[in-house]
Formats: sequence, C-alpha cells, structure tokens
Amino acid sequence: MKNRFIFTCGDINGIGPEIVVKTLEILKKKSTSKYYFLCSPTVFEKYYKLSKAKFKYEISHKLNDADSVVTVLPLKDLKMNPGSPTKNSGKTSFEAIKMAVELANEGKADAIVTAPISKTAINMAGINFPGHTEMLAEWTSTDEFVMTFLSRKMKCSLVTIHNPLKKVPELINKKNLHSTFNVVLNSLRNDLDIDKPKIAVLGLNPHAGESGIIGTEEEKIINPSILSSKNNQFLSGPFSPDAFFANRMYQKFDMVIGMYHDQVLIPFKMLNFGGGVNYTSGLPIIRTSPDHGVAYDIAGRNLADPSSFIEAVRYAGIIIKNRRKNAKNTG
Amino acid sequence: MKNRFIFTCGDINGIGPEIVVKTLEILKKKSTSKYYFLCSPTVFEKYYKLSKAKFKYEISHKLNDADSVVTVLPLKDLKMNPGSPTKNSGKTSFEAIKMAVELANEGKADAIVTAPISKTAINMAGINFPGHTEMLAEWTSTDEFVMTFLSRKMKCSLVTIHNPLKKVPELINKKNLHSTFNVVLNSLRNDLDIDKPKIAVLGLNPHAGESGIIGTEEEKIINPSILSSKNNQFLSGPFSPDAFFANRMYQKFDMVIGMYHDQVLIPFKMLNFGGGVNYTSGLPIIRTSPDHGVAYDIAGRNLADPSSFIEAVRYAGIIIKNRRKNAKNTG
Repeated sequence: MKNRFIFTCGDINGIGPEIVVKTLEILKKKSTSKYYFLCSPTVFEKYYKLSKAKFKYEISHKLNDADSVVTVLPLKDLKMNPGSPTKNSGKTSFEAIKMAVELANEGKADAIVTAPISKTAINMAGINFPGHTEMLAEWTSTDEFVMTFLSRKMKCSLVTIHNPLKKVPELINKKNLHSTFNVVLNSLRNDLDIDKPKIAVLGLNPHAGESGIIGTEEEKIINPSILSSKNNQFLSGPFSPDAFFANRMYQKFDMVIGMYHDQVLIPFKMLNFGGGVNYTSGLPIIRTSPDHGVAYDIAGRNLADPSSFIEAVRYAGIIIKNRRKNAKNTG
Repeated sequence: MKNRFIFTCGDINGIGPEIVVKTLEILKKKSTSKYYFLCSPTVFEKYYKLSKAKFKYEISHKLNDADSVVTVLPLKDLKMNPGSPTKNSGKTSFEAIKMAVELANEGKADAIVTAPISKTAINMAGINFPGHTEMLAEWTSTDEFVMTFLSRKMKCSLVTIHNPLKKVPELINKKNLHSTFNVVLNSLRNDLDIDKPKIAVLGLNPHAGESGIIGTEEEKIINPSILSSKNNQFLSGPFSPDAFFANRMYQKFDMVIGMYHDQVLIPFKMLNFGGGVNYTSGLPIIRTSPDHGVAYDIAGRNLADPSSFIEAVRYAGIIIKNRRKNAKNTG
C-alpha cells in the first residue's frame, strides 16, 4: 500500500520551501511513496531552480495517487520576501496547513509533514494561533493531544507547550497530567508499537522540589497524579530534571514527559542539533515536522539543511506503518 | 606565595569525604599548596583506608601554613550512616562550612572548596538554609552574589537559584537583573581576568516570548534592564533559550546568564557530565565546589569520581591568582 504524504510550504519567507524541495529531490530517488506539496507555484519553482532539483513534478489541483510523480498543489501566489515575516508569508503558511488538514481529515493523505512557520507572521496576518499543534488539534476536533519530540537518542512529550513560564505552574494539575499520561501511552503503543513502554516523568522545580523544600508541586500534584494514573505501572518519577539529563537517564526510557517547553527542548535540541522531529500525539491524523524554525537569516540562499525534514518524513512513515498494523490487530 | 585551601567534608553520609581524600591523594603528588580538610577524624580515616590513600597528613586543630603536609582540622565525631541523610550528617556538614568561612574571613585561607551537602539532612538538623550559596552570602555579609558554573565548555550564572518555579517570574525584575549583571561583570574581570567579556542573557519564556506572544517579561523587563544597565556594552540578548543551546551559541560568549536553575543547569551538566564547577560570584572570599550532589546511592563503596572536585580546586587556584594580580594592578 502506497504511503501518501502531504508536505506544507511553511513560511514562504523562511527556509520551508527550500527544505521540502531538497527533501523531495533526495526521497524521490528511492521511494515510491506519493508526495503532495502544498505551495505557491512561484515559490516552488524558485527553490526548484535554486537547489538545482531534477525530480519530476506536476502542478495540479487534482489529487492523483496512482502516479508517483510529485504533485504540487498550488496555493495562491503572494509576494515573497525571503528573510522576514510578512502578512503574506503568515497567510500562505496558514492556508497550507488548513488545506493539508482538510485533505488528511477526508482520508486523502496518510500523513502531513509541515515545514516551519513564524508565529509573528501568522499574527501579522491577523490569525490568532500560538503554533501548529494548536491548529491541528482544533481542526481535527481533538481535546487531548500532546506535543512530542522524536529522535533516535531521546523521545519526549510536554505537559505544557507555548505558555508563558508564569502560567506553567497552574497548568500542572491532575487533569492535565492524567490526560498527558494517557495520550502518551496510547501514542507509544499505536504509533511507535511499544506495548509496555517505560515512561519517565520530570519534576517541575529545581531538584524536583527536594522533598518540598524548593516547591511543593512534586509532592502535592505530580507524584499523586502518577500514583493515581490508571497507567501508573508504566510511569516513573518525578525525577530531578538536571540530574536526569546529567546522568543520561533518558537512555533508559522510551519517553520522557517534561512539564514545560524549555525543560525538554533545551536538552532535546542539544542532543539532536537540528535533526529532531516534532510530532503531535493524540491526533486522529498523523503529523510530523522538523524541530527547527524558519531560519530567516539563511532564507533564499540555498544554505538550508533538510535533514530534520527528511527525519520527519521517516517518522511519519513509521507511524503510518504502525497504525495500520495496530488497526489490523484490533480490527 | 603558597595557596592555602580549605576543603569541607560535605555530608558525611554521601560521597564528600571520599572525593576529598581522593583529590588530596592526586594533588599531593604535584602540588606544594597547603591543604586543610575540615572533617571528623573517624570519617577521614575510614575513607583514607578505603581508597588506599598514601599522602602524609596530621590531625590537628592548629593551622600550620609552613608545612605542606595535609592538615585534617577535626570536627566532632558524630555517627556516620553512609547512604542516607541524618540529623548528624546535616549537622556535621553545616559545622564544616561555618568553620571554613570563619577561617577564610580571618584571612587564614585563600579559598574554600566545599564537598556536596544534602538540603534534606541540613533541614533534619533544624537548620534553615536552602544551600551553600546562601550560607556563604550570609556569613560574609554579602548582599549581592550570583551562583555561577564554570567549565572549559561553558560558563553560566543564574538570576534565581533554589526557588520554586512559580516564584521565578516575580524575581525577574530590574533590580535583580542589574545586580546580577554587575556582579557577573566584576567577577569576570577580577576572578577570570577577562577585561571586556561577552555576556549572553537568556529569555525567561519559550522562544524568549516571541515578541510578546508567549510572555511579556522579555519585552517589559529583561530587554529594558539590559539597555539600562551601566554595563550594557558587554551584554547581548535576551536569547531564545532552546535555540541558544541548539545552535551552541554559548561557545561565542564568556558567560551565559540564565533566569532560573534548570534552564542553565540542564545544558551545563549535559555538556560537562559531572565535571563542572560551582562558584559563588560576588563574595569577598573564594569558594568553589563540584556541581554534583551527595550521591547517597554510591556512598561508602569507593566508587566516587573526584574529577569535579579536582576541577573545583583548579578553578579556585586560577581565581586566587587572578585576584592577587588584579589587586596588585589596582593597588
């Protein structure tokens, strides 16, 4: 069964279109999957030429799974301005995601891989979303979802995402923790095919509160939520965050659940140096993306490295396979 | 001029006494410095035998700088219980620090290197201090001090230390930021002999607030504090924390100022794997320590690695030298 992927262009003033074109050039040599690329034709052709790509493509509004040529699904051509966020770049990146989710919801694609967007550009276009994850959740009517990061060295999930640090402590409550634990466990089973995973839960405070001396959330909220989780047999923690990473304890777990963005993203990105993958656990559709940003500083100069996007496509393929297998087993 | 160091035993139920004895065994082969070790004689002798040490020592209450033999300054012998915090271990570790600071305040030592303590044990002994840094500040009557971490790969300082995460945002204010900037700059000049240092300042929120979309402290507090600092020519930032570490930008700076404990300690410890050094900037006396904890799980088994303690002694020596040089230049 052929895997059908939809790639979005991301912010057209960033490196998104370039890394997608470079990815297609590499993947088309060995894969018979069907790739759709949601992108404005002018933008696509600029990067096709710039990167000296040679893969066969067609520009068409029609989805054609039978043919394995790359199909560019054309978005409206708006003015590019490589290097900075504009209303146009925000608008185009948003349209691409919206259309990709619609197609995936209709079953016309097996996975979406999204190129990076700029929250600033999205806001300039008058759209009020903090990021991809929140858009995807809304458009697939998903209440419980988790931002997850995948790599060969470490996998991690976040209880809170794009929240100001001062809002984080109030979001660390039993309801959110239980929801995260459940979504993560289901995702490990269905998406990564790990039946009895080992999941580490980090503390919130320095030294995980050191028995309540530096913060009480571990004793009052996190530990009781682990104990009362219906899945507590798979959970360990809460661990002291700095000691956990210092002692490379992530190597002993299938997944690390962190309490806030930088607690997990700093070590994840240090370990993976731009090669990590962002995944949204809990969605009915499959969506991955590179873990880096729009990189305006190198946009339009043929300098962007597609490794993380390629890795995102690889993980999307793994998840398609596992979901098919697990659907068959339970079906 | 001979360097006079005082080492404290730290928590006697942890790895502290063992790593000090192992350090002395290594350093005594090549150094003519004078080493004092504040430790209970029973504890000292247990680890001297356990590690098969051979260095010459005397146990004496008398300070004798002329002789280069190791002098064990005896603390009261309280019952050991390797592997867990006790009232006795808390009490002994506290006494050692107190006496070390008194001796340094009186000019009887050039630097203190402290072995790790347990906040839990300290609390069991009825003493209410969150850590070494706060004790040292109080006993040297220092209002403005900064917890700093030194290594060959990265140097970093913290605006907040052992605070619950939910207290952090209110502590990020102009007064504390200016104080941190000034203490760090003076320490870089006097202690590390860097006249015109490059100092990076991190943001508080994910993506450093992304222009106010994910938190406003960067725009309202951190950036204005950088601009209004009398030392702003040496400061850059606020940087997006995860991108800063992902792109190894710490390699371009003499010092990284972080807003809270785990923001800096996670990447610092990942880079240094137990070989980093904790330093208190801003004190009139010089104090360093290893960046790891008491490691109760391996206490009493001759398994502890003294590398970080040795590195702490090395940095203390560098700072003694730089302070002497800079005192001469300004004197």
